[in-house]
Amino acid sequence: MSIGEDKKDDEINVKAPLYEALLRYKERKDASFHVPGHKNGMSYGGGDLGKELSQVMEFDVTEITGTDDLHHPEGVIREAQLLAAETFGAEESFFLVGGSTAGNLALILSVCTAPGDVLLVQRNVHKSVIHGLMLANANAVFLAPQHDAGSGLATIPSEATVREALRRYPGAKGLLVTHPNYYGMGSSLRPLAALCRASGVPLLVDEAHGAHYGLHPALPESALQAGADGVVQSTHKMLTALTMGAMLHVQGGLLDRGLLRQRLAMVQSSSPSYPIMASLDLSRSQIQSGGQAYFEGGLAAAEKLRLGVQAHPNFGILEPGARGEGAAYAIQDPFKAILYDRTGRWSGYELQEKLEEEGCVPEMSDDRYTVLALSLATTEEDVTRLLQALERIEATRARDTTSEQRKPQNPPSFEFSTWNNAAVSTPVAFGLRPLSPNDRETLPLEQCAGRLAGEMVIPYPPGIPLLYPGEEIGEQTLKQLIALRQAKAKCQGAADVTLSTLQVIKKIAPKAKERKQGTN
Amino acid sequence: MSIGEDKKDDEINVKAPLYEALLRYKERKDASFHVPGHKNGMSYGGGDLGKELSQVMEFDVTEITGTDDLHHPEGVIREAQLLAAETFGAEESFFLVGGSTAGNLALILSVCTAPGDVLLVQRNVHKSVIHGLMLANANAVFLAPQHDAGSGLATIPSEATVREALRRYPGAKGLLVTHPNYYGMGSSLRPLAALCRASGVPLLVDEAHGAHYGLHPALPESALQAGADGVVQSTHKMLTALTMGAMLHVQGGLLDRGLLRQRLAMVQSSSPSYPIMASLDLSRSQIQSGGQAYFEGGLAAAEKLRLGVQAHPNFGILEPGARGEGAAYAIQDPFKAILYDRTGRWSGYELQEKLEEEGCVPEMSDDRYTVLALSLATTEEDVTRLLQALERIEATRARDTTSEQRKPQNPPSFEFSTWNNAAVSTPVAFGLRPLSPNDRETLPLEQCAGRLAGEMVIPYPPGIPLLYPGEEIGEQTLKQLIALRQAKAKCQGAADVTLSTLQVIKKIAPKAKERKQGTN
Repeated sequence: MSIGEDKKDDEINVKAPLYEALLRYKERKDASFHVPGHKNGMSYGGGDLGKELSQVMEFDVTEITGTDDLHHPEGVIREAQLLAAETFGAEESFFLVGGSTAGNLALILSVCTAPGDVLLVQRNVHKSVIHGLMLANANAVFLAPQHDAGSGLATIPSEATVREALRRYPGAKGLLVTHPNYYGMGSSLRPLAALCRASGVPLLVDEAHGAHYGLHPALPESALQAGADGVVQSTHKMLTALTMGAMLHVQGGLLDRGLLRQRLAMVQSSSPSYPIMASLDLSRSQIQSGGQAYFEGGLAAAEKLRLGVQAHPNFGILEPGARGEGAAYAIQDPFKAILYDRTGRWSGYELQEKLEEEGCVPEMSDDRYTVLALSLATTEEDVTRLLQALERIEATRARDTTSEQRKPQNPPSFEFSTWNNAAVSTPVAFGLRPLSPNDRETLPLEQCAGRLAGEMVIPYPPGIPLLYPGEEIGEQTLKQLIALRQAKAKCQGAADVTLSTLQVIKKIAPKAKERKQGTN
Repeated sequence: MSIGEDKKDDEINVKAPLYEALLRYKERKDASFHVPGHKNGMSYGGGDLGKELSQVMEFDVTEITGTDDLHHPEGVIREAQLLAAETFGAEESFFLVGGSTAGNLALILSVCTAPGDVLLVQRNVHKSVIHGLMLANANAVFLAPQHDAGSGLATIPSEATVREALRRYPGAKGLLVTHPNYYGMGSSLRPLAALCRASGVPLLVDEAHGAHYGLHPALPESALQAGADGVVQSTHKMLTALTMGAMLHVQGGLLDRGLLRQRLAMVQSSSPSYPIMASLDLSRSQIQSGGQAYFEGGLAAAEKLRLGVQAHPNFGILEPGARGEGAAYAIQDPFKAILYDRTGRWSGYELQEKLEEEGCVPEMSDDRYTVLALSLATTEEDVTRLLQALERIEATRARDTTSEQRKPQNPPSFEFSTWNNAAVSTPVAFGLRPLSPNDRETLPLEQCAGRLAGEMVIPYPPGIPLLYPGEEIGEQTLKQLIALRQAKAKCQGAADVTLSTLQVIKKIAPKAKERKQGTN
């Protein structure tokens, strides 16, 4: 699509200043006595080898006259970021070349500046959030996510949980939630934004899977529209940037933007990739020039997929209310199709395998579901191919002996939202000091009450950590662990998968840690 | 050059497993129901807009079946890293998608695991090293670099300085040096490696500008060959990877590789760029298949440049011994040409500007020098173009009135190596807590002895921090600051550029900091 070209002289500002600066650089055909060493791809000498890369290398420049500086933008990068802020409805937007990972790290490091600062964190978060807590030496208070009974999947914490957490920890530096989840599920962030605003606590949203939110009436509201203060989006995931191209959007006065800039410079390369930055600029430019029409094709394809599968007797696509009710799951990203076998015969893993054999590559799968990630670039041809693949897979059902018939899945073995004690955890201290075997001891599960966990325990399903290392094992949590043991639930992370024993931190360990810190 | 293709069936292993996996993915033409959202570049619809990017997008995949996982490599990425280790002479090599920045951060975070851990650090380091010290809450002991009198530029610390530092801080977690410097200057790392080995302290080398070292007899020895334990190389700078493509090489038993892997996963994107990783694989493949011959063309071009400039009456290229003697500057990277005006008429900045007007874009410049970065991909045509540009610039000398005649530069106003006190600093505590105005007070310079600096002071030249925030201001350093003030030396960083006053940390500030940490 070359809307950007066509409309370049229109009133709408559709220019892509950074991308165009690279075009000018390329056209100048200067002699390069600067890095990178591939010298605009000449190292591949126009041969076959690497030709897919040599073209982009003509764009792979560095901070030279006219290409600005990501960490101190004053020219085309500044201009491109201003246009991005305008397009996505932020007061200020930062281009990320380290993916949403860089944005999550920088956000946490900019609100938690002293060891022990408390951050309210949804329990089911991306590992980059955990890494940010470790780097910040922060204390995390984990908030149980809401649980959708029908699907067995978790979304954001409830309003009640957040209210209680803000009541218990008024000094919290922020609330960090993930929305939408990997499956494209969620519910409105407005109530949480209102609670945070009332407490003067910034709402930070890992919107990695929702970069397209708010850009079309058929798409869910964006975190910025709901009132979040800091939002991280993987532009490469659900929009059209190169992988690792992401954005950090900020609004309001609760975040220290100067410090945020400094943190971004800490966690990102001092030689950022210009192709990735240009792809962010281009992606924004196409959205701004194409407007809502830019999404119509992909949305039509998504609707065709939804209707096609729902019409099928044995396959289904998860929808709010389809398999369960409740506020936990009120919103579904139309670009994420959560496919499942209504008969329960094939697991999500098996379905993914069969689809890949048919040349349709899903995003991911779990015990029950196969997630298909569509986008504005998905065509009806892609969807036809997928529906035909499902027909061929269905035709093998009778003779398929790779898996025995199972009942349709029951709801998962437990719900986080039912544990009042676990809804808001006690503070869990994160840091960089690795736990050594000497820091841990192994106890019979029954003797672990009140101790600090020495390992992660992740019951599966739903695959959400029930215990993080360093987290206090409360009475209720212990009961839950015993119930899981009796139910013979799968638990990842635990050294003893039978849960007859658990690793806990030796009682002297914390003192030792303090002594170490005393030397600082 | 398509040596890789030609020799694919030779005995030499020239395959590029990761690159080839992406070729296979591209050839399969599967329907993408996974991220990224550009769907193999289809979002650009084959139009003009973004065509430079849409081709590489056919390669811009994610962790799907067959493409392995950078953070848990078991397939093509593992294979590509094994081939890299073989080629660069490491026991283990890690692909970096976050540039040398990611490697420096991960190295520091893997050796400094407790707040207050001491790291011996060359005083003139890349900011990513300072950022690593901050994230690790480490105590840095700064080692003065050796100073080359003739050029006024600094290289690695002397053997004597390192010996003294290891004597004073036997518990140091490592020594981190930068070699070569940005100008391609240096001296042998072997004496430092021997001292570190004798003390059981790992030698960490930021070899960002020396990725090509050790790959040809005409190129200097690599840090691995000299005996370093952990080495970071910007493959994109002096070899041929895409920007942000770098490598971390490890040998010996002093580094905890499991922890290093975990740190790399912390500071790098969980959605690493496959084009960048493939370019690392391709770059290694071309080196392995091309062998020494792969460098001959670039080396011939570099020699032509050196001879051409040295033959010129008014321009010169810095060489060991050319303007000074001494161990500080015994080695010069042939791919870095340090150009200067022998008459002292034009500054490095002015020369860079004039070269850019002539379509020759240098890497960087300072008061005296313009640095040209060549590589194996530099051609004799490039060099001819540069030499002709210098002729045209020379022709303007008579009528150039933009700058008045200056004397040839004197040696810089002072030398780090002459201050015995500053050769090895006292420990400087780094952390993430930002200094607020309330933490600082402004004092007359004469009253600052014994206080902790509240700001950076970077005398220019040579542009090496004389004081880092938090560094104790010793008597000798104070004398030096007074001398700089009397010499009216340029000082970056200092709020009062006249150096009549200096910002120091209030005496209560450290207590306040301790109290904050006590809450952890």
